[in-house]
Amino acid sequence: MIPDEIKHFVALFSKLPSIGPRAATRLAFRLVSKGSGPVQMLAKALFDLSKLKLCKECFFVHSNEGPLCGICSDTKRHTGTYMVVEKETDLMTIEKTHAFDGVYLIIGELTRSGVLEDEQKSRLEVLKNTISKKSNGTAREIILALNPTTYGDITASLIQKELAPFAQKISRIGRGIPTGGEIEFADEETLHHSLLRRE
Amino acid sequence: MIPDEIKHFVALFSKLPSIGPRAATRLAFRLVSKGSGPVQMLAKALFDLSKLKLCKECFFVHSNEGPLCGICSDTKRHTGTYMVVEKETDLMTIEKTHAFDGVYLIIGELTRSGVLEDEQKSRLEVLKNTISKKSNGTAREIILALNPTTYGDITASLIQKELAPFAQKISRIGRGIPTGGEIEFADEETLHHSLLRRE
Repeated sequence: MIPDEIKHFVALFSKLPSIGPRAATRLAFRLVSKGSGPVQMLAKALFDLSKLKLCKECFFVHSNEGPLCGICSDTKRHTGTYMVVEKETDLMTIEKTHAFDGVYLIIGELTRSGVLEDEQKSRLEVLKNTISKKSNGTAREIILALNPTTYGDITASLIQKELAPFAQKISRIGRGIPTGGEIEFADEETLHHSLLRRE
Repeated sequence: MIPDEIKHFVALFSKLPSIGPRAATRLAFRLVSKGSGPVQMLAKALFDLSKLKLCKECFFVHSNEGPLCGICSDTKRHTGTYMVVEKETDLMTIEKTHAFDGVYLIIGELTRSGVLEDEQKSRLEVLKNTISKKSNGTAREIILALNPTTYGDITASLIQKELAPFAQKISRIGRGIPTGGEIEFADEETLHHSLLRRE
């Protein structure tokens, strides 16, 4: 009763993060009822993503001719400071602050396995190579900007071990009460950090 | 810094139900990091949805040569009984029970406006035409299988008014304690219905 096109769509799209089989099924029906024009526009927008590339140094998405993204190909940003982030949206949020002028490495989704994935290990090797080439083998500082969560902490300590020989200093972003937050409602862990790292 | 392909993708996909701008952005980055092969497969699966049609009588999705879906083109199902459902997945769930042998009308997503949308009104006109053609202008029964929620109730009473001249009987699906449910924890409304509609 269900057309194969729907089944195939659901099979593929339900594997994407945050889209389960139910959501994919409802999405498929909604799309068909929009008519063929809008569906083809969406398909084209999706197809066009296949033209994008990942930066050979930081793994951010780009559409440049060369192998590097806008940040990594900007020679002004080779300051010897590197920042490891989990994902592209973290990089974007940090760029908006204009508070960091070094280059990045996107390490990829944190897992709950307590070990680094193969892909993450190979990205760390890329970072080590970049540091060798661009900073004579020793970074001035590597900032681990991973979420201050259990898995962020575990991953940070694994990365720290890997990168220790390649940096004068390895740091993590400061924890504390967020702007607009209230001391009364802060958890103990956060408050502890905010007292230790006074500004 | 963000490639236009990503911006365009986010602009279009964030308008889909249950995908906001944040989810669309993260999805775009995830897709690019999967590589161009998988992205093109997804784009093809999405494109293929544009080949599907909506049934001219019940508005269910189909890929038949003619204008009607498998259910509406099955003459055995023209029993004079019609069922109005909100969406395709409701129809699929009801089909699985094998307890209904009539035909359907998918009325489309319930709104919270307290009035029928233009599209819903035009679908009701289609149903009236079907009843005229297939059941000589009077259905034996029209079952309004809408969710027993506030908006389901409002929509049901609006539809009931519209369809009253076209059916000997208009009913709604029975409310009561679901199988496996416990009387102790049932809400008063449900219990009230389950006492009134004893089996």
